[in-house]
Amino acid sequence: MIREGGFDLSGGKRFQPIGVFDSGLGGLTVLRSLHRRLPCEDMIYFGDTARVPYGTKGETTVRSFARQDAGLLVSKGVKMVVVACNTASAFALDYLRETLPVPVLGVIEPGVAAALEATGGGVVGVIGTSGTIRSGRYQEGLLAGGLNQDQVLALECPLLVPLVEEDKMGQTLMHLAVKQYLQPLKDAGVDTLILGCTHYPLLKDDIGEFMGPETVLVDSAEMLAEAAVVMLRSDELLRRDGASESEVSRVGKMSFFLSDLPWKFADVGKRFLGRPIADITIVGLDEMEAAGDQHEGDLP
Amino acid sequence: MIREGGFDLSGGKRFQPIGVFDSGLGGLTVLRSLHRRLPCEDMIYFGDTARVPYGTKGETTVRSFARQDAGLLVSKGVKMVVVACNTASAFALDYLRETLPVPVLGVIEPGVAAALEATGGGVVGVIGTSGTIRSGRYQEGLLAGGLNQDQVLALECPLLVPLVEEDKMGQTLMHLAVKQYLQPLKDAGVDTLILGCTHYPLLKDDIGEFMGPETVLVDSAEMLAEAAVVMLRSDELLRRDGASESEVSRVGKMSFFLSDLPWKFADVGKRFLGRPIADITIVGLDEMEAAGDQHEGDLP
Repeated sequence: MIREGGFDLSGGKRFQPIGVFDSGLGGLTVLRSLHRRLPCEDMIYFGDTARVPYGTKGETTVRSFARQDAGLLVSKGVKMVVVACNTASAFALDYLRETLPVPVLGVIEPGVAAALEATGGGVVGVIGTSGTIRSGRYQEGLLAGGLNQDQVLALECPLLVPLVEEDKMGQTLMHLAVKQYLQPLKDAGVDTLILGCTHYPLLKDDIGEFMGPETVLVDSAEMLAEAAVVMLRSDELLRRDGASESEVSRVGKMSFFLSDLPWKFADVGKRFLGRPIADITIVGLDEMEAAGDQHEGDLP
Repeated sequence: MIREGGFDLSGGKRFQPIGVFDSGLGGLTVLRSLHRRLPCEDMIYFGDTARVPYGTKGETTVRSFARQDAGLLVSKGVKMVVVACNTASAFALDYLRETLPVPVLGVIEPGVAAALEATGGGVVGVIGTSGTIRSGRYQEGLLAGGLNQDQVLALECPLLVPLVEEDKMGQTLMHLAVKQYLQPLKDAGVDTLILGCTHYPLLKDDIGEFMGPETVLVDSAEMLAEAAVVMLRSDELLRRDGASESEVSRVGKMSFFLSDLPWKFADVGKRFLGRPIADITIVGLDEMEAAGDQHEGDLP
């Protein structure tokens, strides 16, 4: 059976694509890590570019959007949904796990686990959007992992996302913004800093330079790829397990769905994914609404 | 007859409220000017805070959103729709005029008219979001008004909106951003500068200081209020015309509808409107979708 998008599903669930969604293009950094770690897997990316950003918006709104985003991926036949957006992970992960018919993975749990492993007992810092930080999910995870209140310092950095996306002018202002946002973390002597937004891996050099080499930067994208392997294997959904030689050595297909084609999409997308983006389909508001209705649970 | 929201419509259309919408909170600067010019009129404001910003998004997306926004206002019984968003005015004004049952006013035409009146024959500058500037509507209007290509200089300033909204950190970076964005306009010797985004009136001091006192700043919000008076009078919809003494001296009621309650709403809203905001109703995605379907025309 050949399904929509040309994905071959004749080998059963194991051969279905992995679905990844984000509020916009930031999640392409997660897609990049997933593809590096799982090169033979097919992947479908959905970026909600019509309604980006999520990080400044409230819980109910983000959960409604996430339901539609994930519903769209499920309607395309994915075997797993990766929430490649910290704000959506913070507000909607539990809800999606309860309502979707496939396993769901977010970026917060892998980031917390990696930070707990990396810290030398000093302070762990977390930076993210207003929504992510105010949700308290990173802080809860770190405290549950054994840290005390004085060992956790979480800060909202709302301007970093628009600064990353506005390449030319952004670069000039970036150093100043990084310095101002991160100074309190440096003063507190953090030994581990979680980059709690999928846009931030593009700032790794700036942030690393400011914080100094003794601070470990935790990139959720990389941690999530490891967690995806574990989850797929335990659910017997890993394509390469039990596959033929040619299956293992194939290069997975990537398809992109967006709710709006942004002006700077090609440029920004290439920087985030590390290569040009092809095979893009624009999804209208109507299709988003229909996708959300399919897996509707009671929104709390 | 008393309609939803407590508006008294017993006096006919003339007594219905004026509807104003924007992608978010920027349009509150327009509401403020309208209220100052027409204090006895009732007004309903809708801010699409769930999907803000519009300025980075494409024409089809903005038009779909604008249809829902305006449809919601019409369903609340407004006598006129004011598009208090430059990007929506650029992409959706003609479409809304064709499909809505009430008069529609945008911010671009009044801004162009004011700039043509103010310029001393030098260069007219326009700053706005990527969407507004790339639509070319301001440039077309200025050329149609008699200026030549060398007398029009339009520049995208995408970072100014997030900088205005991020009050504390934004202020520090603002001077630098204003300088970098506006230097080419200063070098070109513009004598008139259109603030082509409803967020920019909050930057009037910074922009005025950088450009110098010889540059006239055209604030679309103020120009639009004048245009609204003219349009309402010609359509015989002005509340004070033919009204009793007590009608004219009353202070109009303001109601606010938002698609999301942002974290910083109270603070940002107060800065934009000039006073605290009360009587807020949150509109869910479902109601937005239904409102859009009511006045559906063929989207080009």
